[in-house]
Formats: sequence, C-alpha cells, structure tokens
Amino acid sequence: MKEKNIPIVKHNSIGHIGGKGSYSHEAAKKYFKEASYKSFPHFENVFRALDKGIIDYGVLPIENSSTGGIRDVYDLLIRYNQNIVGEIYLSIKHHLIGLPGASIDNIKTVCSHPQGIMQSSDFIRFNNYDTKICSDTGSAAAFVKEYGDPTYAAIASASASQLYNLEIIKKNTSDKSHNSTRFFVLSNTCASPSNDSLTSLVFTTKHEPGCLYNALKYLADYGINMLRIESRPMDNHPWEYYFFVDIEGSHEDILIKSALEYLKKQSNFFRILGSYKRSQKDI
Amino acid sequence: MKEKNIPIVKHNSIGHIGGKGSYSHEAAKKYFKEASYKSFPHFENVFRALDKGIIDYGVLPIENSSTGGIRDVYDLLIRYNQNIVGEIYLSIKHHLIGLPGASIDNIKTVCSHPQGIMQSSDFIRFNNYDTKICSDTGSAAAFVKEYGDPTYAAIASASASQLYNLEIIKKNTSDKSHNSTRFFVLSNTCASPSNDSLTSLVFTTKHEPGCLYNALKYLADYGINMLRIESRPMDNHPWEYYFFVDIEGSHEDILIKSALEYLKKQSNFFRILGSYKRSQKDI
Repeated sequence: MKEKNIPIVKHNSIGHIGGKGSYSHEAAKKYFKEASYKSFPHFENVFRALDKGIIDYGVLPIENSSTGGIRDVYDLLIRYNQNIVGEIYLSIKHHLIGLPGASIDNIKTVCSHPQGIMQSSDFIRFNNYDTKICSDTGSAAAFVKEYGDPTYAAIASASASQLYNLEIIKKNTSDKSHNSTRFFVLSNTCASPSNDSLTSLVFTTKHEPGCLYNALKYLADYGINMLRIESRPMDNHPWEYYFFVDIEGSHEDILIKSALEYLKKQSNFFRILGSYKRSQKDI
Repeated sequence: MKEKNIPIVKHNSIGHIGGKGSYSHEAAKKYFKEASYKSFPHFENVFRALDKGIIDYGVLPIENSSTGGIRDVYDLLIRYNQNIVGEIYLSIKHHLIGLPGASIDNIKTVCSHPQGIMQSSDFIRFNNYDTKICSDTGSAAAFVKEYGDPTYAAIASASASQLYNLEIIKKNTSDKSHNSTRFFVLSNTCASPSNDSLTSLVFTTKHEPGCLYNALKYLADYGINMLRIESRPMDNHPWEYYFFVDIEGSHEDILIKSALEYLKKQSNFFRILGSYKRSQKDI
C-alpha cells in the first residue's frame, strides 16, 4: 500500500459506471456530495482511469444484500493496485418504468443491468418478460425513452424515471423487500486513520490440508473479528481460490498488524486492500 | 438427511437443465452412462421434479473453475431438501458455432447461456458482439440453426455443433485456457458409504463477533480438512450469510460426526447436504 494520505475534498473527480440515474451515480453523490462525476461503461474502465490519474476516486459496487458479491469487481481488485478508502451503503428500490401511458399488460421486454434483472427475477419470470441487458439501469431508462416502443420498460430507480421523463408502471419489483448495495470507494492513496475502521484483505493459501483454517486462526488468536469471507477462483490455477476477508479495525492497529504479518507468512499471496471508515448500513 | 441408501442402477431417470448438446446433459451421461434423461428449462424445475418423484436423480452445475460458484444452485440447495450423492467434473470447451458457411467477420450476435457468455467475455468484448441469453448452450445452438440468420452464432460445445449440423467458426473461445465445471448429483436418498468421501454442509452463525471463526474451529480441532467455503446472502436477513463448506470424509466417520455435532450447536441453522464419493478433477 502507498502510505500517503490525502483528505477527501470537494471538487474531486469521481469515476463510476453508468450515467445519471444509475445506482452507482447515486452512491457516489451520497458519499462525495459536491464533485465532478465521470461515467464509464465498464468496471474495468474505472480502474484504468484511476491508474492513469484521470480520476481521483472510483465508486464501484462490491456486494448486494440479495444477490451477493459483485464478482467482476472482486476480480479487478486483484488485477489493479488501488486502495479501498471508503464504503457506502445505498438502499436499492427497483421499479418498472416505461413511456408515459404505457400499461403493465402490454410490456413485453424489460431492459436493465444484469444485477437489476437478477434482483427482480421472480417478477420478470412471473410476467414472462423478455430481457435486454444494458450497461447500467440509467442507460436502460435512456434506451426505453429513445427507442419509443411502449412494449419496452426498464427496471431502474425512481430518479432514472424522473430524469428521462418516464412513468413508474409498477413500484418495487425487487424479489426481496430489503435490497441494498454496498459500494467501495477506491483511490491510489490511502484513507486517513479513523476510530471506527474496517480492513479488507485478500490472500491465497498454500495448497496443503488445513491451510485455510490456519490462515483464519491467526486472526482469531489475536481476537480479530472477521465480518465476511468471499472466495473467488484464481486465474490459471483451477480449483484454487483467492479469499477476500473483511475484519474490524485498521491495519495500523498494533494487534492487527501483528496478526496480518503472521497471515502474510502463511500465504502464497497476500495484500491489504485498504483500511477505511465503517459506514452505517441502511437496512 | 433421509437414511435409506439405494445403489445407482442403470435406467434411472435423470433430470438436468438444457437439452441434448448442453454441458449438463454431457455431465449426466458421463456419470450415469445408460439412463433415461429428462431436460428441464430452469434449475428449480429439476429440484421440483425430484421433490415430486418424477426423476430419480438431478444433475446440476455447482461451480465453474473460471467464474466460481453457480449461485442459483447454492440458493436452491437451501430451499429444497435433496441430498448430494455424487460429483462430476466436466472439461468445458466453448466454441463459436454458426450456420454452414458463416464467417467470423459477419457475426454480430452470439447466443449462449449466461455462463457461456461470462466464460467467453474477453472474446465477446474484443469482437464487440451483441449477446442473446438462452436457457442453455444446447438451446443456443438449436436457436441459431432454426433462426437461420448467418450473423447469429452460438457459444456451445463441439457436440452441440454436430447435433444441430452447425460449423465451428472459432475454436476455444473461453477466456481461460483451463475451464472445467463441477456438477452435483442430487437425490431424495443418501449415497452409499465410500472410502474416499467428501461431505458438503451449510450453516449460519449466530450474529456475534468471532462466530464464523468459532464455527470453523470445530472442524480444525478435529483435524478435518476444509476444501472450500462459499458464502451466500440469507433471504430476508440482509448482510447475514449461509456458509457452504466442503470437507474431506463422510458425515458417518466418528470424528467428523463429533465435530459436526459441535458445529451444529454453534449454528443458528445447520444441514448436512450429503456425503458422496470424491471424483477425479479433470484439470
């Protein structure tokens, strides 16, 4: 990790996927308030823009409360070298939105990001809708507006509906009554220390019996609370895994520092992805 | 778990998703050889057919070596009460297949199962193809044949290409050189004991600090080798997780039985999904 800290100031340049009306844009605005926002088509474009210094911060979804981890972002955290400097929880309220006057009985095709489609899959299957994949929920709304076919609707937010002068045809299409997404704020620098920190790290174990348990044991022996574990397949090492773990505390706390030193020695690969201020969960 | 064991005999009725030419059908044939096969459109249909006794066994993908766990199947393992009685590894070789005479330069849209699309995403992005989601790779090939538009191609297996009289336009479209899928064999009964067993289980921890580590500690204290851990969000408990764990050995081994008794006491929810004979990995 690079050791220089910079404060989050106004008028930074923030990268996210999807345009206005997308949940990523909403999340970025919730965290940064005043800033200039740049929209990118794919997760990887945000990582590249950070790498090249085109943006100061990237805001990317990492986990949804009903569908789980956003795998592409986990995989990109390995391939690029940015730090996690913050987290944001955003309550997700999906609606079926269409052209003014469109009726639910006439909708045939719903457009959304794959996550919007997955999170509303019971609703979509019940109505037997065809689906069209868009790069984000904001673009899905923009497409419905531009295409002008009243049999097309988007699954997107109320703000996307307002932004593109569309109407909400059916409220709350999510399968689960509670639907929230956690986002990471990424940067080339590290976050300032905080009293209420979380630390995200990733490691691979040696390919020997008991190694995963031994790795986790170092955390437990030091009384460190592990909040989450996500495993992702390793590139070109079939059936071996990267383990992404979130723990309570900062990597600069003495106990955590010692535990992570031990864990590092036990790992084939080890990286602290960042320590950052814990955010309030919204559900 | 129901305790009755039945041997796997010829001419059982086996359910899988996708028709002939799909990877699930290939996997089922690899395991059962002679049997009657029933094709279903969705994973859940296979679980329901098992529940109703329409089929004797279900064959469902659980993990791909490059994209990770098949989440829908993990979630359905919780919702239904079937046992895992076997595992199958199938090497996946995706090809771009199209109408006879179709040329790679003229293809505009590729059809496949979402997994086929995800596993070939570099190839698809490089060629800037539109995508059409099909229920399985076999159906994708069937669609290309029936639709008759030479700008459409499928990402599917060589056997799907043969089956529907299509041609391989481009070999090996997978992003990773090694691509393999692990399948579970499910049944209402349990597997016969074996000397080389694996056991799959699922549990939730109490919502207290250190609980995940404590749960795993019971396995380690008994010298049990944990091979894999996958976390999935809990329905209606946002930011809480089901942990799916694979261990070496049978749930009937004395040590494992004791360890799992302790783990069960520590868990809010606990279920042995099955003990079954370990299969050879193909890569």
